[in-house]
Amino acid sequence: MPPRASDIPDARRMGQALDLAKRGIGLTSPNPPVGAIIVSTEGKVIGSGYHRKAGMPHAEIVAIDDALQLNSRALQGATIYVTLEPCSTHGRTPPCTQTIKDVGIRRVVFGAADPNPKHTNKSFTVLGANGIQVTGGVLEQECQEIIKPFTKWIMTGLPYVIVKVGQSLDGRITRPPEESQWLTSDSARAHGRRLRVRADAIIIGAETLRKDNPQLTLRDADLGMGKEQPWRVVLTRSGNLPPDARLFTDEFKDRTLVLSNLTFPELLKELGSRGMTTILIEGGGVVIGQAFQAQEVDEVHWYIAPRICGNGRSPLAGFALPHSVELDDVRVLPLADNVCITGVPVWPDLMPNPSVPEA
Amino acid sequence: MPPRASDIPDARRMGQALDLAKRGIGLTSPNPPVGAIIVSTEGKVIGSGYHRKAGMPHAEIVAIDDALQLNSRALQGATIYVTLEPCSTHGRTPPCTQTIKDVGIRRVVFGAADPNPKHTNKSFTVLGANGIQVTGGVLEQECQEIIKPFTKWIMTGLPYVIVKVGQSLDGRITRPPEESQWLTSDSARAHGRRLRVRADAIIIGAETLRKDNPQLTLRDADLGMGKEQPWRVVLTRSGNLPPDARLFTDEFKDRTLVLSNLTFPELLKELGSRGMTTILIEGGGVVIGQAFQAQEVDEVHWYIAPRICGNGRSPLAGFALPHSVELDDVRVLPLADNVCITGVPVWPDLMPNPSVPEA
Repeated sequence: MPPRASDIPDARRMGQALDLAKRGIGLTSPNPPVGAIIVSTEGKVIGSGYHRKAGMPHAEIVAIDDALQLNSRALQGATIYVTLEPCSTHGRTPPCTQTIKDVGIRRVVFGAADPNPKHTNKSFTVLGANGIQVTGGVLEQECQEIIKPFTKWIMTGLPYVIVKVGQSLDGRITRPPEESQWLTSDSARAHGRRLRVRADAIIIGAETLRKDNPQLTLRDADLGMGKEQPWRVVLTRSGNLPPDARLFTDEFKDRTLVLSNLTFPELLKELGSRGMTTILIEGGGVVIGQAFQAQEVDEVHWYIAPRICGNGRSPLAGFALPHSVELDDVRVLPLADNVCITGVPVWPDLMPNPSVPEA
Repeated sequence: MPPRASDIPDARRMGQALDLAKRGIGLTSPNPPVGAIIVSTEGKVIGSGYHRKAGMPHAEIVAIDDALQLNSRALQGATIYVTLEPCSTHGRTPPCTQTIKDVGIRRVVFGAADPNPKHTNKSFTVLGANGIQVTGGVLEQECQEIIKPFTKWIMTGLPYVIVKVGQSLDGRITRPPEESQWLTSDSARAHGRRLRVRADAIIIGAETLRKDNPQLTLRDADLGMGKEQPWRVVLTRSGNLPPDARLFTDEFKDRTLVLSNLTFPELLKELGSRGMTTILIEGGGVVIGQAFQAQEVDEVHWYIAPRICGNGRSPLAGFALPHSVELDDVRVLPLADNVCITGVPVWPDLMPNPSVPEA
């Protein structure tokens, strides 16, 4: 006999929805990744789904359609678990709260509140007026974590900024002349390339284009799962770039963008206005230095190789910061003899996340 | 019934001797740390010991004396396991090979051959002529590892050089003005201080003395186990040092040495001639840069804090090396949100260790 819905804690159900939501990370901009599962009155999972792409159905609708395929009456009295509060306004698609009500769902459990202050916790009123029970804030922190880029973008219009650095042990991002251009190991670089899946755009400076002539592409496996090649944005002052660079000649040349003479805040505004919610800066030191000086770095991934260079370029190109920047939520990940250190910069004016009221 | 000697593999016995030898690390300069155990014909451990200090008995003699306390006949036919080939020449003490023969030991098993080319594997001849069976090279690599400083010193007259660095993630050893002088965490610094136990001298530059006014002392626990305060060596060009610095006024002021106008190779020669076999460089960047430029670094311990400084002093003070220096035998040790990376620089002209002939 299957357990009744009440036997399984909400948090465990939400964990399943969260796993689904994560499949959409990097695919949904400017929307957030969202996952949902539906549980019948008998406690059986009868539908599940996640948001796959902006313009396509929201997670709630995917899960409802999934359940309806099984049985048109199955949704009567059911509970839906969704990682993000259901929308109650018309966007590109009708409001999910309306559909939820229409199909006979009687309980809604969500993780993160809608980060848009205009809509935060609105579902309590909209759904409650229709006799639907609403519980918010289940696995709240985990559910907020995966929509951090969307939250920043909706609150500020600016994309979430990830910085990736590959350096020697003594903090140099270049090796002496006539040595290989690579510092970190093959496997550390492969590990770092996986960050591109999360990005709508990969940013480099003109100097990096000239020196490294990079491709900034995804692995085939990532393209296969529906991820578009991220934009490749080259920042330049002179505009004087080699026309035969890979970014201008390879199969993704239509996904290359050259932007001239922008301050870092202007750059973010420009990319945000194009609906980019996550960008990845891959160097060089000047772009990274500008990002730190503007206090606009949200996450860092620092790859360190066991090599001493003595001299060479620095990861922040020697930009003088008024204060050093502490990292929070630090993880140290050894990768054979390389190491990856990730963290979240602590800026003085941290913006609090919207929170759901106590249940 | 105790097992016969032959039932226990030589490597396991040598492992016990090695554990004893390690107790002497940092205490025995200019001698190497050595451990020994003696096993009777019945396979019983009847004596053990390690070398505690130059001028005091060698490990073999300590173990023999230990066995003689038990029973004056116990050594007849016994086997001695010693991490380093027994000496066959008069030093401050009579040759151990003589004593081994005199007390009736019939088999000698050693780990590392005597690294002094004049004596390497001489014990085979000296002891063999007296009908004593000799086996060399048991746990050879491990036994060589702990005498690396002695090996370098006996071959070159120069001490083994350990470099310790504490830096920000982006490779800065100083923080912006008006911030704390510390980069790494309390526990990372405590971890780093343990390196001082291995050192005969701790080296700093004048700039580090002026800026940090360090003490460079041991923990009480280390002093308790018989370790002397290492020499504190300040390198200076001007000779202009603050007379009220801790190194000149604290209880160990007699263990402070100021050396002026020496190149790094000259410094090593000077310290080696004073019988120092291991030195620890704790900064700043100029001294560390000189050590790397001279290709005289044998081991590095790099502590990295989760903090971005942007600017500040570099661990090698920007010294241009002709080639970057790869590290071998790399270990990545996470220390909460700090990390310690250790390794052995690979220099072009590596000196091979002396090796015992195949058994």
